[in-house]
Amino acid sequence: MSDQTKYVLQESEMPTQWYNIQNDFATPLPPVIHPGTGQPIGPADLAPLFPMELIMQEASVGPYATSYVDIPEEVQEAYKLWRPTPLIRARRLEKALGTPAHIYFKYEGVSPSGSHKPNTAVPQAYYNKKEGTKRITTETGAGQWGSALAFACQLYDIECKVYMVAISYRQKPYRRFLMETYGAQVVSSPSPDNPIGQKFLAQDPEHTGSLGLAISEAVADAAPREDTKYSLGSVLNHVLMHQTIIGQEALKQMEMAGEYPDIVVGCAGGGSNFAGIALPFVREKMKSGKNTRIIAAEPTAAPSLTKGVYTYDFGDTGQIIPLVKMYTLGSSFIPAPIHAGGLRYHGMAPIVCKLYDEGLIEAVAVGQNAVFESNVLFAREEGILPAPEPGHAIRVVIQEAMKAKEEGVKKTILFNLCGHGHFDLAGYDAYMRGQLQDFEYPREEVEKAISMLPKVEMAS
Amino acid sequence: MSDQTKYVLQESEMPTQWYNIQNDFATPLPPVIHPGTGQPIGPADLAPLFPMELIMQEASVGPYATSYVDIPEEVQEAYKLWRPTPLIRARRLEKALGTPAHIYFKYEGVSPSGSHKPNTAVPQAYYNKKEGTKRITTETGAGQWGSALAFACQLYDIECKVYMVAISYRQKPYRRFLMETYGAQVVSSPSPDNPIGQKFLAQDPEHTGSLGLAISEAVADAAPREDTKYSLGSVLNHVLMHQTIIGQEALKQMEMAGEYPDIVVGCAGGGSNFAGIALPFVREKMKSGKNTRIIAAEPTAAPSLTKGVYTYDFGDTGQIIPLVKMYTLGSSFIPAPIHAGGLRYHGMAPIVCKLYDEGLIEAVAVGQNAVFESNVLFAREEGILPAPEPGHAIRVVIQEAMKAKEEGVKKTILFNLCGHGHFDLAGYDAYMRGQLQDFEYPREEVEKAISMLPKVEMAS
Repeated sequence: MSDQTKYVLQESEMPTQWYNIQNDFATPLPPVIHPGTGQPIGPADLAPLFPMELIMQEASVGPYATSYVDIPEEVQEAYKLWRPTPLIRARRLEKALGTPAHIYFKYEGVSPSGSHKPNTAVPQAYYNKKEGTKRITTETGAGQWGSALAFACQLYDIECKVYMVAISYRQKPYRRFLMETYGAQVVSSPSPDNPIGQKFLAQDPEHTGSLGLAISEAVADAAPREDTKYSLGSVLNHVLMHQTIIGQEALKQMEMAGEYPDIVVGCAGGGSNFAGIALPFVREKMKSGKNTRIIAAEPTAAPSLTKGVYTYDFGDTGQIIPLVKMYTLGSSFIPAPIHAGGLRYHGMAPIVCKLYDEGLIEAVAVGQNAVFESNVLFAREEGILPAPEPGHAIRVVIQEAMKAKEEGVKKTILFNLCGHGHFDLAGYDAYMRGQLQDFEYPREEVEKAISMLPKVEMAS
Repeated sequence: MSDQTKYVLQESEMPTQWYNIQNDFATPLPPVIHPGTGQPIGPADLAPLFPMELIMQEASVGPYATSYVDIPEEVQEAYKLWRPTPLIRARRLEKALGTPAHIYFKYEGVSPSGSHKPNTAVPQAYYNKKEGTKRITTETGAGQWGSALAFACQLYDIECKVYMVAISYRQKPYRRFLMETYGAQVVSSPSPDNPIGQKFLAQDPEHTGSLGLAISEAVADAAPREDTKYSLGSVLNHVLMHQTIIGQEALKQMEMAGEYPDIVVGCAGGGSNFAGIALPFVREKMKSGKNTRIIAAEPTAAPSLTKGVYTYDFGDTGQIIPLVKMYTLGSSFIPAPIHAGGLRYHGMAPIVCKLYDEGLIEAVAVGQNAVFESNVLFAREEGILPAPEPGHAIRVVIQEAMKAKEEGVKKTILFNLCGHGHFDLAGYDAYMRGQLQDFEYPREEVEKAISMLPKVEMAS
């Protein structure tokens, strides 16, 4: 164990492979189901939306039926604009808590758009470019994913159109300006640009929009056009695989520090940043018998793992995209407007759900006042201002560090600080003025929402 | 020469000394003059405002009469929260420009408050703590300096009170929230908290304030109180010395890259980030005969080096603090409201002025549309969104890289990217909508302002 604060890898030490956990599963993921036919969907069903290499990665087939997938050299080059990211030991936080625990965090906020999102935006843009895509559409809530994709498209000279939820478009212009600076076209959703948006605008010209609606518009824009594909920033298997660069680096850096984590924590909304840090450690747990606790920290306002039901549901609120088996609160559920917009999702990545179902990972739900309390403490001790999303992880880390203190045992804790909070200061202000609300989502409500799901008959 | 993009130092390789250029000057800096007596001021005059160690550093006396000053271990520890900062080669920008030039930049935006400012805020808080200071006051414009000092005071458990220019306090709340998150007390200036502010508020309860006025309030707050000192974020000699950690690291990192810069560029307002990267390279120029061009990039709206007069003037608009010899536009001059708020200063650090006067450095003035044009190009190629201030340096770097292209010669260029632009996106939006104004400051105006300065009789 060294006495350093930061563990930095040289570029030459950056891992050159992603980890594909699907290949190590004893049983495959439950199939994705076409809502019309009840049949598992195949590559042809996805081809209008995604390039073939990403579809093969999604299904873990062809050259991707392997546990480690080579990162293309062009993607490695682009990663080096900000990667490897630092592993930092939170020594001042440890001291402030008076805990014997050692707390390490991987800091993804150093990326161009300020979060882990470019880890998948860049390869998605790259594979699209390779297959001739000229234009990519996507949706964004507050703009974190949209700005990552805008940046990635710019790298490969691809047009980018972002459907931004209307209320954020109006109230949070800064991330829109960032997307525009990166060269993307940003429209408020519902938009006058396609029939779906037009329909909603006709009903209400001041419609505030929703993420589900923005997905519908982005998909409807891309599907019929030969030169246009669609891109999603979380949930999907290939997205999670791209994010494993985080955990792959962390494995090396923990070794530099001369420690191995007893506990790994990440916040979970769609599941991509949690999976990014967790999957390589899940592998060690499965293959090398390491006894690591791996914890997903989710908001009490959208507690899909801790209060949801493991069943087939739609990935979008509009219920137009295929059904996946996941822990869900019901696709009709609109989570309360917490500041951690990136965690306001009714479901969870199927890979994360399978691990939870099999008991390989745990989950804890956290309220937003507790999140901001932890974030303020973290900022004052460590300097970095965390986004509200990773604040959920920080809260759980502090709880575990205090438990270690009570029990008088030294624990090594690692978490993913997936982004900075420079665009979230209004949330900090609301917290400090005592104006933040906590939201609970009762189990009865979940059951009601689940019971309202259309019954899907699975052909088998 | 390697093919890397980033050159990162391990913590163990971080320089442990600042560079004190005063000790290498053939002739000393012109003395600082007391406006009342016309006499050079001494340590006793500064003691109400600064701790003694900083006063000795300012005067380069006692243990500080040496070219290299040991960085206290406690400060090194705090620096390691974010230092060493990366040196990055802008390979994609080079390619976009089609230039044979190699462009390197030192990225200071990774610090807690997002700029180079904590490099001096931390040691200033440390020396204050050592001498028993319980409370520090300062002024801030848009909040970049205030947030750095708030963070540093938090590290050493010192109370921090920031007088924030009223118009920014109202229009730019985000940096205020950041300062409050770091535990500082922030008041709008003019404030009801002391007689100076009260006077101005009585005249106009909606007074928009000015940096000069905020300085007056912060000084008036600190001077009479035993437990309270005052802190300044630029201009002063000790501030510039603390910033040389940037250039000291860059020297090592350029060596890692196997190159030595032909040109070094930094933006200059008060002069601290420019000096931070430049002074160690000025030393090489003076001592080792290196033939490096060192360029200060300043705004056309406040062109103190390129259009100012080298004379004695007040450091503040309120004309209450001592007189220094510097290139100045006249202390009554209020620069136009450009987005690069950190460069809106009528004067320039005396050390930088002396180097300019002696021909060791050059200066170029740049307009703000050119700055934002360069910043958008930089963001699209390199991902990082620069603040408007370092955009002045980027503009000059692009000009030099294009000159190298025309001349067909390979040049190695290094610049300081002193901060990110996450709080400056309104400026980007204005630029992209074609709504940014350029400002020139004609020489006649400078001469008029200079002629209006009170005549200071120097006792000699």
